[in-house]
Amino acid sequence: MDNYTKLLIESKLFYPGSVKGTFCLLPKGNKIWEFIKNILDNEFEKKGIENVVFPTLISKKLFEKEKKHISGFEPEFFSIEEKKKSSIVLRPTSEVTFYNLLKKNIKSYKELPILYNQWGSVFRKELNISPFFRNTEFLWQEGHTIHNTKEEAINFTKNILNIYKNYAEKILLLAVLSGKKSEKEKFSGALESYTIECLLPDGQCLQLATSHYFGNFFCKAMGVNFRNEFNKLKNPYSTSWGTSTRAIGAIVKNHSDNLGLILPFDISPIQIAFIIIKKKKEIFDYYVNINSKISSFYRCCLYNKEKQNYFNIFQADKEGCPIKILIGEKELKGKFITLSRRNVKKKKEIFEENILKELIIEKNIFQEEVFLKSKKNLEKNIFQEEVFFELLKKIKKGGLFLIPFCNNINCEMEIKNKIKSYSIRCINENKYKEMKKCIFCEKNTNHSAYLGRSY
Amino acid sequence: MDNYTKLLIESKLFYPGSVKGTFCLLPKGNKIWEFIKNILDNEFEKKGIENVVFPTLISKKLFEKEKKHISGFEPEFFSIEEKKKSSIVLRPTSEVTFYNLLKKNIKSYKELPILYNQWGSVFRKELNISPFFRNTEFLWQEGHTIHNTKEEAINFTKNILNIYKNYAEKILLLAVLSGKKSEKEKFSGALESYTIECLLPDGQCLQLATSHYFGNFFCKAMGVNFRNEFNKLKNPYSTSWGTSTRAIGAIVKNHSDNLGLILPFDISPIQIAFIIIKKKKEIFDYYVNINSKISSFYRCCLYNKEKQNYFNIFQADKEGCPIKILIGEKELKGKFITLSRRNVKKKKEIFEENILKELIIEKNIFQEEVFLKSKKNLEKNIFQEEVFFELLKKIKKGGLFLIPFCNNINCEMEIKNKIKSYSIRCINENKYKEMKKCIFCEKNTNHSAYLGRSY
Repeated sequence: MDNYTKLLIESKLFYPGSVKGTFCLLPKGNKIWEFIKNILDNEFEKKGIENVVFPTLISKKLFEKEKKHISGFEPEFFSIEEKKKSSIVLRPTSEVTFYNLLKKNIKSYKELPILYNQWGSVFRKELNISPFFRNTEFLWQEGHTIHNTKEEAINFTKNILNIYKNYAEKILLLAVLSGKKSEKEKFSGALESYTIECLLPDGQCLQLATSHYFGNFFCKAMGVNFRNEFNKLKNPYSTSWGTSTRAIGAIVKNHSDNLGLILPFDISPIQIAFIIIKKKKEIFDYYVNINSKISSFYRCCLYNKEKQNYFNIFQADKEGCPIKILIGEKELKGKFITLSRRNVKKKKEIFEENILKELIIEKNIFQEEVFLKSKKNLEKNIFQEEVFFELLKKIKKGGLFLIPFCNNINCEMEIKNKIKSYSIRCINENKYKEMKKCIFCEKNTNHSAYLGRSY
Repeated sequence: MDNYTKLLIESKLFYPGSVKGTFCLLPKGNKIWEFIKNILDNEFEKKGIENVVFPTLISKKLFEKEKKHISGFEPEFFSIEEKKKSSIVLRPTSEVTFYNLLKKNIKSYKELPILYNQWGSVFRKELNISPFFRNTEFLWQEGHTIHNTKEEAINFTKNILNIYKNYAEKILLLAVLSGKKSEKEKFSGALESYTIECLLPDGQCLQLATSHYFGNFFCKAMGVNFRNEFNKLKNPYSTSWGTSTRAIGAIVKNHSDNLGLILPFDISPIQIAFIIIKKKKEIFDYYVNINSKISSFYRCCLYNKEKQNYFNIFQADKEGCPIKILIGEKELKGKFITLSRRNVKKKKEIFEENILKELIIEKNIFQEEVFLKSKKNLEKNIFQEEVFFELLKKIKKGGLFLIPFCNNINCEMEIKNKIKSYSIRCINENKYKEMKKCIFCEKNTNHSAYLGRSY
């Protein structure tokens, strides 16, 4: 078992299921996922998105409708042979269920847009299993929408990407690349795919969330149409977008240190860990008093299961509690508390009357420091390169390369031959001011792209 | 399609999936289920129960461990033949996953009790499909716990039944029978099963929730043990308990009338429907003013999609909004609103300044009336009977029979031969004061039981 998996089990987030590649989310892991759900649901609600539940089981016949129309999109799915004629597929994604539902229920432009999302599990046959990164069964959120106009659908796709980017940076505290996928890398069937990707400690890029614009391609294929303002039959424009329990894997891999997890404040099951330095009634009462002042604002927990404080602190650190508050003789006498942020060693004394005010500051500093560490690590690993032979030399050391790139599919298909295991992660949002030459084919271009190893 | 299914589709709660017996919960249906989840989670949290996520996929080998030990418990499950040696089962329930997880993770009595619950979907091969009542895939909550002592586990089982009973009566507004299952009807492997059952309009009893006490039987079979206070290896005592999307079916079947749904107040996606009688700026402003006073306390919605008010009222009624507020010229002038409860025809005028106070009263009356209707219907259909030949005569007209019953398994096995399609629904919690004779075998008993047709 690798250290990462060991840490997941020891910190009681995760335990493997009985089928390879499946997992149990234990109470702590489930809470992290629930906080993520609430935070994203809150953002989705502002956009008018409604949650639904789609079935896990999809008829194979319906599923194959999609396969016919999207060459290349053939995920490895599980199928259950019921009778010869009625096989069942375990959903690898729910596009077909969504379009099949709308096909029968949408009549007029007045009903548009339809903005649905579901939280659920999906199933993929994966060979190389890694907890939260590659799983046979994992949890995700999948959004599906249809719109009256192209512009509305494109804007929606981009708006969702912004939600994801904000979520990655402000909630997960992960610096990410974000932008359009290249021609080769975009989701099969999509006209445009947007992605956010973070860098893992081993230098691989991890796709954290994607948002796709389908044009009216998918609706045409599935026979979804509606009457527009002029009573004409039209196919709506559609999008889909998702993010998964990969997020949990990403924060564990990126923020942990040799003591254990470091959990982002907003999604940490316990935000403040209390440690009582000396077992004495007056000190315990002092803790109760401090706790009563802050426990309606923060998720607090007293770590006192072990006799020796060393082990209580060890436990709180292993679980990744962002902030520890230590209370002992000295604190009681001086009417202060000793606070330490999980990500640094230094401690700070805070007077009782300032606790609430100071906690806001400490929380913000914690969030900022953890994010900045991730940001610096990302920046440190991005290298600008415009000359192919230089790239070939440097690439051996790993990292991400910002290169001039023409975004032509033929040129992109050649990358694999030229540089093994590397691919275009996304097109840079900012164009060059002057024209440059594509690092591969040397055609003129003002586009740049990130080249990296994908997970 | 029957009227019930039609109503589910027309009121936009539900739409069938592509595989027979599966369903989509549309935004309204999903909201009802989410409210139910929140209300029950709140009660579960008070008992210290923690939510987890278990995988849908279970290894067949592990699943069969359970089968060996519990004769009779062989639900029709779906299996996926992967390789000859590694078949997969779609969970019909998650007992084995729970025990398998604990087997490897529990060491000491200090860690007990373990109180886990999960919200998810389960899969059963069902022949006679009915939306929310019998499904191939449905949503439920399944709790699994282990305890140090017998007493604690038994009490826990009963406490959970109380939560369910309260939930059925106060939230779903359904009168229920509650009590112990008879020997024959209890869950295979359980030492004691408790149930709550409501009566459907067609006279069938519907099991709404169950709570089971397993003794240490299940833990023994699955090899779960721990060291107790005296360092001795012991098998813990376990329970499991669940309730499902059947609840949605039950409220739709029981509370609906010829206008459509009547949704219980606490789980209705929209609690108060506004209808503007006349389109006029001053009246609209008056509505905005009233809405601003109540919308932070209740889920409100203006029904104004149709030109004719008749249709807006029709829609609010079809969807089952518990309370309608009508605002027109007369209301604006008199500074009042006209309120009507969904379950009765009469309207009431309420002065603007009394709205919040009166809404609490109207809400309570609504809840009480809907529940009382259900309660009266249940009571009206319960007949006391002590003579077998009388029972045979009366049973043709349907209904529930409260009978003296010995609760002996052999006597119970005979019921099917004597009275087709009827079975013991549950043992009455109150014993007779004097001894009576079992209606079937005529042995002395002070127990009584409810005999009815089960769904």
